[in-house]
Amino acid sequence: MDYKWIQGGVTAPAGFTAGGICCGVKPGNTTKLDLAMIYSDVPCSAAGIFTQNLVSAAPVKLTKQHLANGKLQAVIANSGNANCCNAEETQNALAMCECAASVLGIAKEEVAVASTGVIGEILPIASITGAIPALKDKLSQFGSEDAAKAIMTTDTVKKELAVEIALEGKPVKIGVIAKGSGMIHINMGTMLSFVTTDGAISAPMLQSALAQAAEDTYNMVYVDGDTSTNDTLVVLANGKAGNREITCKDSGYDAFVSGLQVLFKEIAKQLAADGEGATKLVVCTVSNSKTKADARAIARAVIGSSLVKTAMFGADANWGRVLCAIGYSGAQADVTKVEVSFVSAAGKLSVCKNGAGIFFSEELAKQILLEQEVEIQIDMHDGTGYAQAYGCDLTYDYVKINGDYRT
Amino acid sequence: MDYKWIQGGVTAPAGFTAGGICCGVKPGNTTKLDLAMIYSDVPCSAAGIFTQNLVSAAPVKLTKQHLANGKLQAVIANSGNANCCNAEETQNALAMCECAASVLGIAKEEVAVASTGVIGEILPIASITGAIPALKDKLSQFGSEDAAKAIMTTDTVKKELAVEIALEGKPVKIGVIAKGSGMIHINMGTMLSFVTTDGAISAPMLQSALAQAAEDTYNMVYVDGDTSTNDTLVVLANGKAGNREITCKDSGYDAFVSGLQVLFKEIAKQLAADGEGATKLVVCTVSNSKTKADARAIARAVIGSSLVKTAMFGADANWGRVLCAIGYSGAQADVTKVEVSFVSAAGKLSVCKNGAGIFFSEELAKQILLEQEVEIQIDMHDGTGYAQAYGCDLTYDYVKINGDYRT
Repeated sequence: MDYKWIQGGVTAPAGFTAGGICCGVKPGNTTKLDLAMIYSDVPCSAAGIFTQNLVSAAPVKLTKQHLANGKLQAVIANSGNANCCNAEETQNALAMCECAASVLGIAKEEVAVASTGVIGEILPIASITGAIPALKDKLSQFGSEDAAKAIMTTDTVKKELAVEIALEGKPVKIGVIAKGSGMIHINMGTMLSFVTTDGAISAPMLQSALAQAAEDTYNMVYVDGDTSTNDTLVVLANGKAGNREITCKDSGYDAFVSGLQVLFKEIAKQLAADGEGATKLVVCTVSNSKTKADARAIARAVIGSSLVKTAMFGADANWGRVLCAIGYSGAQADVTKVEVSFVSAAGKLSVCKNGAGIFFSEELAKQILLEQEVEIQIDMHDGTGYAQAYGCDLTYDYVKINGDYRT
Repeated sequence: MDYKWIQGGVTAPAGFTAGGICCGVKPGNTTKLDLAMIYSDVPCSAAGIFTQNLVSAAPVKLTKQHLANGKLQAVIANSGNANCCNAEETQNALAMCECAASVLGIAKEEVAVASTGVIGEILPIASITGAIPALKDKLSQFGSEDAAKAIMTTDTVKKELAVEIALEGKPVKIGVIAKGSGMIHINMGTMLSFVTTDGAISAPMLQSALAQAAEDTYNMVYVDGDTSTNDTLVVLANGKAGNREITCKDSGYDAFVSGLQVLFKEIAKQLAADGEGATKLVVCTVSNSKTKADARAIARAVIGSSLVKTAMFGADANWGRVLCAIGYSGAQADVTKVEVSFVSAAGKLSVCKNGAGIFFSEELAKQILLEQEVEIQIDMHDGTGYAQAYGCDLTYDYVKINGDYRT
């Protein structure tokens, strides 16, 4: 599938504007952007994927309701407060939504709402509703960056990308913003991500494409194993590209899924690399396992092991911990066939063959593992299953950031 | 059930001697004890529980074989090298076992073997076999402490306890040594633990009692979620107390299980408190959940959450993370009924009722959470299920210890 990277994030697709503003939700900080809006000038097909946590925040519940008819036209999202587990969460999520709808002149059911931040504190709703009119005035074709910044919590860099694909010769653009950092487990490995496209696609196909594209990307990101209460992935498709609407799983559908996958895989890596306290991106690639499900289980176990994560931080070629994680992954595995290699810009080094250690240069291992992007390659020599998972190292700063997040 | 704490660890029960020696397995260290032996002067009924990791070390496999007939008379165990995932592991485990058997004048099938330490390196077997005769000469009634020290890896304190119970009026002693620290997941939450008793009990009843006693104790300890390749829990019962042999699940059996539970629960707490880098013991008590299984799932999820663990390190009353973990625990839960309190020697403080935050004194919360032993009490108000899990905080030192464990 051909594609090209383009500028503009969620405002790259035709008909979308976005913006961000500082409304004062983030405690003790008066300059950081903390309220984002995305708007399409026409109604959109829409789809979403949400946290699987039994404890889900009011904005998640409300957005699910609003997606029932497969239509949305705008997104309003704040950082600094998750609006979860507090006595006023339901009314405040609704107030945030109604205010945005009213200012934009659309029905409240056309608005997706999302919040991220501390759990359990009352949302300062007046600050939000007070700022929404000014935020609407800031909506622009160049507002994606501000929107991306306004949903950041402990993220250190904004996540914003866009890609152009062709559907029956017509250029179709897809844009995304996301925030991640902590509380990232293997399902819906993100807290908030908003996707826009000017492609024409029916809501059911959009939902299917979203789930399919997330499977090997967002769903394979691991930072700390905690599943957030607020995970929200929403996509809006306004059809302005003028392609024939995708209504079944044809070649156009496949191309659209591929476009989403390209975007999501890159964002997944960015989320992992910017995991709380992370100094490096760690990718675990499993090949030739008995089945794809086994490959996924192994990749997830290795990328999630605290002991592998700390070894990566220390640039220590402790492959025994990799084998240990394979062993408890739950996957079918013949451990006497396993080969493990470490790969990075500095080179590639096999450290284990047939499930046992082999002689290797500790010096080269150190060089490889000191790079900012390290791949743990596992060849199971036992089938054709393949999967990749994206994670990061476990560092002093993870402990520091999370030891006192609230205050 | 009445019991009293006694001195002597694994040598408290009649007929057992033990010892530890420095044989030089631990790299770059010539004074730390690293080889332990436990010996009964008569044959014993025996039972064991082992790692569930698909990758299990050669000593685990060998000890399982030797337990097939339910008889053991001695234990030989080294620290500093796990004898796992290396080309010579099988022959070296056997050599270690045969040497101990030969020096003790018993059959090799009567010897349990265990190793703990770095995975993937060849065991320096000559150092071990060379030291076994001297270790045999050191066996004594006062040798439990040395044996306990000789199995330590990153543990900072030895774990050694003994208890006396009564079976039909006859005093029966049970002793234990253990090592834990890292790679501790919720099943078999220890790496090595050896138990001795002078009680008379058949091998099948001993296996059953061991499993029953481990369920709410060793199996509820969590440090970092990694399941070791070498977990070994072995019990030897030599019958010297002269009680009528326990051969069915009668009141004597129940009393014996209770004795094991008392020991294991205390050791479980010690293992958790001495988790790698830990500054405090964290106990999660779940009461009134729908079922006991739900209580166990919730307690495990909360105690295992990296975000809860870092909050405990920072003495931050971030109860939202506790609710979040309840939500993803997989347990049936009505989150609108949940009450969360923090308890320690400094006091008790409710921070969440009916699933939402309540006003509380941050000052008192800090005082409570700064203690060395903190309990997270969760009342589900939804049934009668109860469980406790034992864990620790996640600290800078965990990262430091594991960032460069091998070198």
